[in-house]
Amino acid sequence: MTYCVAMRLSSGMIFVSDSRTNAGVDHISSFRKLHVFQQDGERTLVLQSAGNLATTQSALSLLRRGCEDGKNPSLMNATNMYDVALLVGETLRSVIKRDGEEFGGTLMLGGQIKGEEPRLFQIYPQGNFIEASTDTPYFQIGESKYGKPIIDRVLRFDTPLDQAMQCALISMDSTLASNISVGLPLDVMVYPTDSYSSMQQYHITEKHPYFSQIRQLWSSGLLSVFSQLPPLQLDE
Amino acid sequence: MTYCVAMRLSSGMIFVSDSRTNAGVDHISSFRKLHVFQQDGERTLVLQSAGNLATTQSALSLLRRGCEDGKNPSLMNATNMYDVALLVGETLRSVIKRDGEEFGGTLMLGGQIKGEEPRLFQIYPQGNFIEASTDTPYFQIGESKYGKPIIDRVLRFDTPLDQAMQCALISMDSTLASNISVGLPLDVMVYPTDSYSSMQQYHITEKHPYFSQIRQLWSSGLLSVFSQLPPLQLDE
Repeated sequence: MTYCVAMRLSSGMIFVSDSRTNAGVDHISSFRKLHVFQQDGERTLVLQSAGNLATTQSALSLLRRGCEDGKNPSLMNATNMYDVALLVGETLRSVIKRDGEEFGGTLMLGGQIKGEEPRLFQIYPQGNFIEASTDTPYFQIGESKYGKPIIDRVLRFDTPLDQAMQCALISMDSTLASNISVGLPLDVMVYPTDSYSSMQQYHITEKHPYFSQIRQLWSSGLLSVFSQLPPLQLDE
Repeated sequence: MTYCVAMRLSSGMIFVSDSRTNAGVDHISSFRKLHVFQQDGERTLVLQSAGNLATTQSALSLLRRGCEDGKNPSLMNATNMYDVALLVGETLRSVIKRDGEEFGGTLMLGGQIKGEEPRLFQIYPQGNFIEASTDTPYFQIGESKYGKPIIDRVLRFDTPLDQAMQCALISMDSTLASNISVGLPLDVMVYPTDSYSSMQQYHITEKHPYFSQIRQLWSSGLLSVFSQLPPLQLDE
């Protein structure tokens, strides 16, 4: 199982993926389940995957090969994010058509190409896609429900990147607590708007001091809020 | 959509159901989506349903008719909860076999028959069932994931009934916030062990003072805990 969340906010983007399964194959640039395609100063693309591993690996392999072979369009030469989403969608659809509909997969594509604002897409097995908006500034794929309430409570389009990452980590913590098939380590990335950089990538294991600390603080904080609720009074 | 949760604890049982759809048909005793079969001092049975409404209504109608016709076994004369679960499972299976497998449904059966401790079962469309234990003192059916993390954090077998109901209400609040197809009012019931009573039933609307209060306190409490997390520190 997988849980990935991506956020597109006023000041940039946040990407968080679990990595119990290691997707492995990505020769352009790979950070475990975060697949990064990067050209300094010009574009930063991030793909996150959920679903059948053979399908999503194949799609990523084909997309990477398109870049190496200098195809047009490719992830590295498409001139805007919409065309990248189209290409990713077509690639995903072609793999599923080839291998069988039972081997579905879903991708999230986020990033920025010079001349545009950062954009975020969720791409379905059918190859079509939706784009994040100011009102819906995040997407999740995989085992998404356990971690959704905290995002809905906290996240707004103008949430600063640091807080948004905290929110994504807490969302991941709720998921880890309720589904043992979603597991550490996490691969996370912060993308500040107009940075065209993939430098802020981090690998978070069980022993990561900050993640351990906020998991513990969040758990004890919730229990404290719960214990301070007023006594039950069901009669009106 | 539906969200129901039931808890079997050391001091009794808790039942909470949303009721955006009104199941309606139950002539023995009905409290919206909580279907109560009651014989004072001898047995209290509670059925909660999720899935296809035609299926679960039919199953409940047949079970009710069995009581009225004096069938043996029926909900009112089975001598133990296991036999009740068997009967409910067989009834559910027979309806699904008759109407078609696409019209599935799931039931939860909780309660107590004199001579036994309270017991709680989750009954699958196939008619088989599992029973809650000391380690797993609760079941959920329907849209269960949004509201699971808080239960996993808070609930233990020896949690007092008042706290358990608070926990179930907060769990419902998380679900209401994330899925608009789960809706108020709620039907809730507290069953203290050996009471053989269905007196503690409550109907909770949007305007219910206590539920409104704890929803607001929970929301502000969570945001407060979140805002007090230490500054993001992803470098180790």
